[in-house]
Amino acid sequence: MARRALGPALLAVVQAVDAALTPADARLLVACSGGADSLALAAAARHVAARRGLPCAAAVVDHGLQAGSDAVAARTAAVLAGLGLADVVVLRVAVPAAGGPEAAARDARYAALRAAAAGDPPATVLLGHTRDDQAETVLLGLARGSGTRSLAGMAVRGAGLLRPLLEVPRATTEQVCVELGLQPWSDPHNVDPRFARVRVRHRVLPVLEDALGPGVAQALARTARLARDDADLLDALAAEADPGLGAPTCDALAALPAALRGRVLRRWLAREGAGDVGADHVRAVEALVLAWRGQRGVDLPGGTVARSGGRLLWQAVGRG
Amino acid sequence: MARRALGPALLAVVQAVDAALTPADARLLVACSGGADSLALAAAARHVAARRGLPCAAAVVDHGLQAGSDAVAARTAAVLAGLGLADVVVLRVAVPAAGGPEAAARDARYAALRAAAAGDPPATVLLGHTRDDQAETVLLGLARGSGTRSLAGMAVRGAGLLRPLLEVPRATTEQVCVELGLQPWSDPHNVDPRFARVRVRHRVLPVLEDALGPGVAQALARTARLARDDADLLDALAAEADPGLGAPTCDALAALPAALRGRVLRRWLAREGAGDVGADHVRAVEALVLAWRGQRGVDLPGGTVARSGGRLLWQAVGRG
Repeated sequence: MARRALGPALLAVVQAVDAALTPADARLLVACSGGADSLALAAAARHVAARRGLPCAAAVVDHGLQAGSDAVAARTAAVLAGLGLADVVVLRVAVPAAGGPEAAARDARYAALRAAAAGDPPATVLLGHTRDDQAETVLLGLARGSGTRSLAGMAVRGAGLLRPLLEVPRATTEQVCVELGLQPWSDPHNVDPRFARVRVRHRVLPVLEDALGPGVAQALARTARLARDDADLLDALAAEADPGLGAPTCDALAALPAALRGRVLRRWLAREGAGDVGADHVRAVEALVLAWRGQRGVDLPGGTVARSGGRLLWQAVGRG
Repeated sequence: MARRALGPALLAVVQAVDAALTPADARLLVACSGGADSLALAAAARHVAARRGLPCAAAVVDHGLQAGSDAVAARTAAVLAGLGLADVVVLRVAVPAAGGPEAAARDARYAALRAAAAGDPPATVLLGHTRDDQAETVLLGLARGSGTRSLAGMAVRGAGLLRPLLEVPRATTEQVCVELGLQPWSDPHNVDPRFARVRVRHRVLPVLEDALGPGVAQALARTARLARDDADLLDALAAEADPGLGAPTCDALAALPAALRGRVLRRWLAREGAGDVGADHVRAVEALVLAWRGQRGVDLPGGTVARSGGRLLWQAVGRG
């Protein structure tokens, strides 16, 4: 455990974990898939926890989505024990069929991890998402075109989860495995081009780096950090500007800065029960406010917005 | 001039121009390179101006950067006259050697156009940038990773310039030329891979569309619109939060939301004469404010920022 025994890649990951922890993180639970990123995270977290005198456990999630996933999980648990993590559990989670397979697997995984972290104090769940994962998330958000929040990527911290490696390149985590002689598991899903994230990773980012220079992943991760700060403030300002129950008047909406008007409209539409409202929907509703010439209502998922008496009215689609 | 005589592509461009004009646009001056986008813009602007009874002139800019550019300009002027634009001038501009060739040519072009638009009232200068140009601009800003403002792309309107085609696909402008039997000029610079914009256009965007679907250019243009609204409000709030002359105190900076702290720091650094300050520079200065443990100053382009007595101090690099 002497610090000089750490290889340069592991040292970089140790420093990232150390910098992300606060005194409120009293127990750690590393979520580990067996991939290079989360193995490197587990190795680094064990070092940092030992130095700080914190309990550090690990949880391997078995989604049961692929044949042999139980064997992968058992092998990963053995590797983690070999790294010196004393308390390693395998969490078998059931992935519901609803939603996309990625989103459903993620939700099930996070729920199982939060349950495993319960206690007094609860453990902080450490996730191994890297700078490259963050860059991919930003590009996926960019392709949706739904604004600053969709460019904010993943949060370093939130809801009991901590992602200390969001500024660490994936290659560094792979190098940690080389330094430690570990054989990371390669998830076949990570090369399955049915997933948009896989296409971004293997086709889009390499072309972007080739066309614009090797700093693109770093620039995308920086964009996420800046966009998150911006979106947090603008969402807070929109909450202040939102009159709450009932529709805001068109006069009040028209007086708001454009950045807040769209957000206040989204808050109101969510309260009314509108479905998946996109930026173009919001823009069409804004036209009722800003360019009123008696036009008919605007169709949105789940209903229609019309203007009457200087107010917006939501009419849900009848469910017959 | 009957409206039914317009082809569908020209009609779309006419509608875009019509929607972008306000009663304050009393005279129009179309900037035309001879390319498909600005030829389509000129044709559409002539229709809209005739319908509204506005004077509509055109200016062809000859940068003199390529052999035969004067002949291209003369031919374009003839095409514009053929479209019915009565007042067509060729502006010969000198491009200074300083700065990148793209930026220098743009600055020289805009200065010449504003001079040509002078008068009482001044003409509104119409520029032919399309949705694809906007998408490219967003990707170039994304690769810089310098935040929401760098994703805001080009403004529809500002400083006497109007870009009515920012939501019109480039292909629509090409179709206008087919409808009108025009032969647009193909600028060799538009296929020269030394330019980052050309690499984005011909290599990055096609891969993005292939990997993520055909709506990418539209999503990027939508991102620009939303990011511009957000950046405008946040810049205005930062101007309010900025104490103006002198350095803000560290206590005041620490109390600001992160989104404003970075912007207030940038304003201060600009006043002090710092050079090209990036997001990582701002972050390092923020560490002096938020994570103060007596560390030494932070080197920036043009000088150093240190902390002393609860304030930030700028020390310019001596120019010996």
